Amino acid sequence: MINEKMYELGTKKSTIRTIFEFGRKRAAEVGEENIFDFSLGNPNVQTPKFIKDAIIEILENPNTSEIHGYTVAPGNPKVREILAKSINERFNTKFSGKNLFITSGAAAAITISFKALSEPNDEFITFAPYFPEYKCFVESVGAKLIVVPAQVEDFQINFDEFIKRINSHTKAIIINSPNNPSGAVYSEDTIKKLAEILNKKSKEFSKPIFLISDEPYREIAYDIEVPYVTNYYNNSIVCYSYSKSFSLPGERIGYIVVPDEIADFGKIYGSIAGAARVLTHVNAPSLWQLVIAKCAGMPSDISIYRKNAEILYNGLIDAGFTCNKPQGAFYLFPKCLENDDYAFCERAKKYDLLLVPGNDFGCPGYFRAAYCIKTETIERSLPLFKKLAEEYKNN
Amino acid sequence: MINEKMYELGTKKSTIRTIFEFGRKRAAEVGEENIFDFSLGNPNVQTPKFIKDAIIEILENPNTSEIHGYTVAPGNPKVREILAKSINERFNTKFSGKNLFITSGAAAAITISFKALSEPNDEFITFAPYFPEYKCFVESVGAKLIVVPAQVEDFQINFDEFIKRINSHTKAIIINSPNNPSGAVYSEDTIKKLAEILNKKSKEFSKPIFLISDEPYREIAYDIEVPYVTNYYNNSIVCYSYSKSFSLPGERIGYIVVPDEIADFGKIYGSIAGAARVLTHVNAPSLWQLVIAKCAGMPSDISIYRKNAEILYNGLIDAGFTCNKPQGAFYLFPKCLENDDYAFCERAKKYDLLLVPGNDFGCPGYFRAAYCIKTETIERSLPLFKKLAEEYKNN
Repeated sequence: MINEKMYELGTKKSTIRTIFEFGRKRAAEVGEENIFDFSLGNPNVQTPKFIKDAIIEILENPNTSEIHGYTVAPGNPKVREILAKSINERFNTKFSGKNLFITSGAAAAITISFKALSEPNDEFITFAPYFPEYKCFVESVGAKLIVVPAQVEDFQINFDEFIKRINSHTKAIIINSPNNPSGAVYSEDTIKKLAEILNKKSKEFSKPIFLISDEPYREIAYDIEVPYVTNYYNNSIVCYSYSKSFSLPGERIGYIVVPDEIADFGKIYGSIAGAARVLTHVNAPSLWQLVIAKCAGMPSDISIYRKNAEILYNGLIDAGFTCNKPQGAFYLFPKCLENDDYAFCERAKKYDLLLVPGNDFGCPGYFRAAYCIKTETIERSLPLFKKLAEEYKNN
Repeated sequence: MINEKMYELGTKKSTIRTIFEFGRKRAAEVGEENIFDFSLGNPNVQTPKFIKDAIIEILENPNTSEIHGYTVAPGNPKVREILAKSINERFNTKFSGKNLFITSGAAAAITISFKALSEPNDEFITFAPYFPEYKCFVESVGAKLIVVPAQVEDFQINFDEFIKRINSHTKAIIINSPNNPSGAVYSEDTIKKLAEILNKKSKEFSKPIFLISDEPYREIAYDIEVPYVTNYYNNSIVCYSYSKSFSLPGERIGYIVVPDEIADFGKIYGSIAGAARVLTHVNAPSLWQLVIAKCAGMPSDISIYRKNAEILYNGLIDAGFTCNKPQGAFYLFPKCLENDDYAFCERAKKYDLLLVPGNDFGCPGYFRAAYCIKTETIERSLPLFKKLAEEYKNN
């Protein structure tokens, strides 16, 4: 009677959701202040005031169809020009408006890109740990997601394992840096080596292998540069969102960048338009297009995330955890104190510490702690992490 | 290298688009005021002031995450309750928030519904004249669109032709009333007869046949009631958009209504959630959810459309055209003055009258004139329609 696959996708609860709901239940029992919920990657920094100011200024235009009317599918041409200019100024690129396609957030941007590119039997490769929705999105366009095991020492790329998995079916590589859930930023060396391999393999298989860079956390990086991939590899597609940088996750606004240098720009940009059409992303919300143009290049306030990262990282190290230093995004990804990450996260629940097992991100034995929460909550959680660690020591 | 189907969908220009672009070119040559562009169904009524007021009021909330944060996928629960209540008050229904799923406009609403329901070999039936994107959307979910020829006398449903096309593969019927392009509103008798047939056929094939009602023009109806389909048929799904009623086409905000009485509510609502997820409609823009809640039940200003409909209809009748009286939406769908609607629209172009051939809507021999344009432009176009008609008389 209905599409069973859709039913499954619409009703099966993710681990993160289950943990979050457990937290809500516990909060009702023992009080909000006694729950230490590190489960959700929801920005807790307030939306900057310049967003509100921009909206109010835009609304002063008496011609409402210029605010709320349809835009062409790739987005308001003037907005695209402004965004391109802003990207160029910050990342030393040479885009114009025609290189941009404005989307309803990054989820739409990456899925539109997948759909635009995917042909039967295509494979998309990503690197653990990875954002679990990739699997759903890649499979929804009829392709297969191939996962390269994590390089847990530094959460850069395990190139030996990567090379084994590239073949003639490989359509594209998906990267996410700063990374959810590892908090790592791919170094320039990593990107250079990745580009080198992709160039070699594209030649070997006589077809371009694309690099899709999913960058919702680009601005949340601590004293470390996030290389702009189009400067290193021609067949790159960049997917961006304002969800995190401007704390606008509910508004669904972002964009796709397709560089001129990509293999057959016209074909790819045209296919992106077709994919947006069938996924019924008619145009990105028109008011929000104007807002991001007005706020192009404005700074993201990452001071709270930076402070939280430091406090949680130091606290965990102090308690005896092994963890890479936070480089970006708002996640830490420490090693569990036992091999079974599900068992570990269950044990942490006894202290009302809500953590997500690494297996959900293709990286068992680790856990994700999202620190986009109140600093004070993090501070009060540290003694509990300590107790948890001591429990393991005494076993 | 890319998905050729997406490329085709993204780059092939629609007839409407081609006509519109011709108009822009001509306007540059002979002046905007000498072009009579009836091609686009773009609301020309200003967005009501209460929308602006609502936005400004919402922005006063200092907790920005309540404005711009993620909502659950079906939409803010409070907003859904308010919308359900407003629907109940106006249409004598009994919905609660759980019956609603807020979407990014009607295109998303109908495609999510198609995807939620469609299984292999499914057929979706619609009635000519019909909105051409239905074909693209139905095919994109792997199903087939079956078109019932128009009943040109009144643009109600040709039931004899309809019955011939229902079979065991029929998953759902798509209706659009007030109709684009005919401007007709399906009468209560039409809806009752449709429900009767669907009940009978559902029994015959031992499976529910769904009725998907695409209603972006619900509020634009002239002194005629638009029956609310869930009051007549249990297996109904209503798809709504604020694009036309509040002149917000670029903002992409609307909803799906799934009544309790539908065959297996839980399965269908769950599948809708799954379909929204894979089409990457993460949630409808959160600020816009709050705006429509604040403006629920506010009136649409249809006075301009009503006036335009009257002037254009009377003018065309006076010039000798055959046309049904406008009942709703903002389109007239008169008979062409020759059998070939493409040839007719080409001839109209000589007078800079830009009309869309009916064949594009599955109804050859007719043309669509969108009257959501300046009243003064319509008035000045009437002598040209007269000249065009005289040209045919003299031939």
